[in-house]
Amino acid sequence: MTASFGVRLRAALDAHGPLCVGIDPHAALLESWGLGQDAEGVRTFGLAVVEASAGRVAAIKPQVSFFERFGSRGFAALEDVLSAARGAGLLVVADAKRGDIGTTMAGYVSAWLEPDSPLEADALTVSPYLGPDSLRETIGAAVRADKGLFVLAATSNPEAAALQTARTIDVEAAEDQSVAHRVARDVTWANRSTVFGGGLGPIGLVIGATVDLGERGLDDEVLAGTPILAPGFGAQGASPGDLLTRFGTLAGNVLASESRSILGAGPDRIADTIIERAALYQEVLGG
Amino acid sequence: MTASFGVRLRAALDAHGPLCVGIDPHAALLESWGLGQDAEGVRTFGLAVVEASAGRVAAIKPQVSFFERFGSRGFAALEDVLSAARGAGLLVVADAKRGDIGTTMAGYVSAWLEPDSPLEADALTVSPYLGPDSLRETIGAAVRADKGLFVLAATSNPEAAALQTARTIDVEAAEDQSVAHRVARDVTWANRSTVFGGGLGPIGLVIGATVDLGERGLDDEVLAGTPILAPGFGAQGASPGDLLTRFGTLAGNVLASESRSILGAGPDRIADTIIERAALYQEVLGG
Repeated sequence: MTASFGVRLRAALDAHGPLCVGIDPHAALLESWGLGQDAEGVRTFGLAVVEASAGRVAAIKPQVSFFERFGSRGFAALEDVLSAARGAGLLVVADAKRGDIGTTMAGYVSAWLEPDSPLEADALTVSPYLGPDSLRETIGAAVRADKGLFVLAATSNPEAAALQTARTIDVEAAEDQSVAHRVARDVTWANRSTVFGGGLGPIGLVIGATVDLGERGLDDEVLAGTPILAPGFGAQGASPGDLLTRFGTLAGNVLASESRSILGAGPDRIADTIIERAALYQEVLGG
Repeated sequence: MTASFGVRLRAALDAHGPLCVGIDPHAALLESWGLGQDAEGVRTFGLAVVEASAGRVAAIKPQVSFFERFGSRGFAALEDVLSAARGAGLLVVADAKRGDIGTTMAGYVSAWLEPDSPLEADALTVSPYLGPDSLRETIGAAVRADKGLFVLAATSNPEAAALQTARTIDVEAAEDQSVAHRVARDVTWANRSTVFGGGLGPIGLVIGATVDLGERGLDDEVLAGTPILAPGFGAQGASPGDLLTRFGTLAGNVLASESRSILGAGPDRIADTIIERAALYQEVLGG
């Protein structure tokens, strides 16, 4: 029997620390790596990052957009990268930010979270614009397949606050809450199941590394037992030390995602860079 | 020189009326059409819908999820369907609901809206959870390529209201607005450009056919000159007559999307069903 996503994530975090290596083969990086702007370029890039990451970090996070750019041939390249990563024992978070309802969303779940699907990953990022409760079936499907989700909650781009801090009325609780809080509350119910024994549950949140949690209405209570995927470490501004200052007692539940700071090292230096960066996080958390 | 998306959409609406045929090859439909649950099944399904739609409706809307379900081979099938549709003179709205920031979003634009990309469509549906203003560059890129966007604004699924009616503070205007209103206001600026001469602009909104516009904070002023993609007609509950009762003076700017009501007719009856449904809308608008 497969362990639940939360259990697998906990084991990976304990073994390797929080670093998650983003696989973002955008045009400028392909160029600096000396690779073509085509499906073969993103395949070579992705496989090299997987090789450099294997056994050294908890997870990789391929950014689907950069493969989708090349259509079906880009997806074939992504399939090879996902398969290599899973074969190497890396947890795979497909960063696709899909979001829809009903059978349409079931199609995305089937694409990314169904065992033996060509695009099989361990977890998928999803968007809650259609209402956090619209993800209820998606959450159930992920849990049943022992897979995970990371639901967009609070992101660190400056334009995000207008929507994510908007106040939504909760009639039952007779109070108003931020959208980010409401998303967190309404999607993490599955983590409270006794099946997960108080450990990490399968339903995570995307929370930017430089987000002020209090300002977005996120507190330790709503985040307890919830995996956190935090983009924004490295070149985007957050340092390993921020893991503790931003996330406090929850720091041990965070996948700290870095892309440019690692990928920019180029093919010859990437493995050493991953070793160095991973050690920095281990130091912060282990110290 | 290619005409802007708004001009092409206006011409298609004037020629064929508002009906947009959804291409949603989900498992149950593949089965009832006698097709396999595989890439070949969705290819055959999609090409048949294109053939039945050509010359009879303004647009088709393939639901990307149902092709993505089969990975790279599903995307290869989708490429064939998109290419056939564009070759047949149909406007193509890729219903993918992508949403991200920076170079990642540029990757999605490149995938779906770049001329000669294998997945080239005329317009793409996108999600504003990362903040409506985060779509600014995406809007610019779409306009430059003479392509269109439909930004998720107000959807008709019951779980949507919690987020879409949340109140966001507009400091400059010293007032608070619904999220749906803020999205509409912040993404439709491009339509006001004098380049579009007061006709339809290129930046549309997704507004469910059964949504109460007033309740979501959407009024005629914010929607003027804006293409509207309205799913929910047909089997999902809205009738052609609702086009006028729901959208009033804006009804002429609406693409009324039907899926199940048309696709459920099966391969032998789909062409006749499209002719019948298209005529019903023409009657409502022309009468």
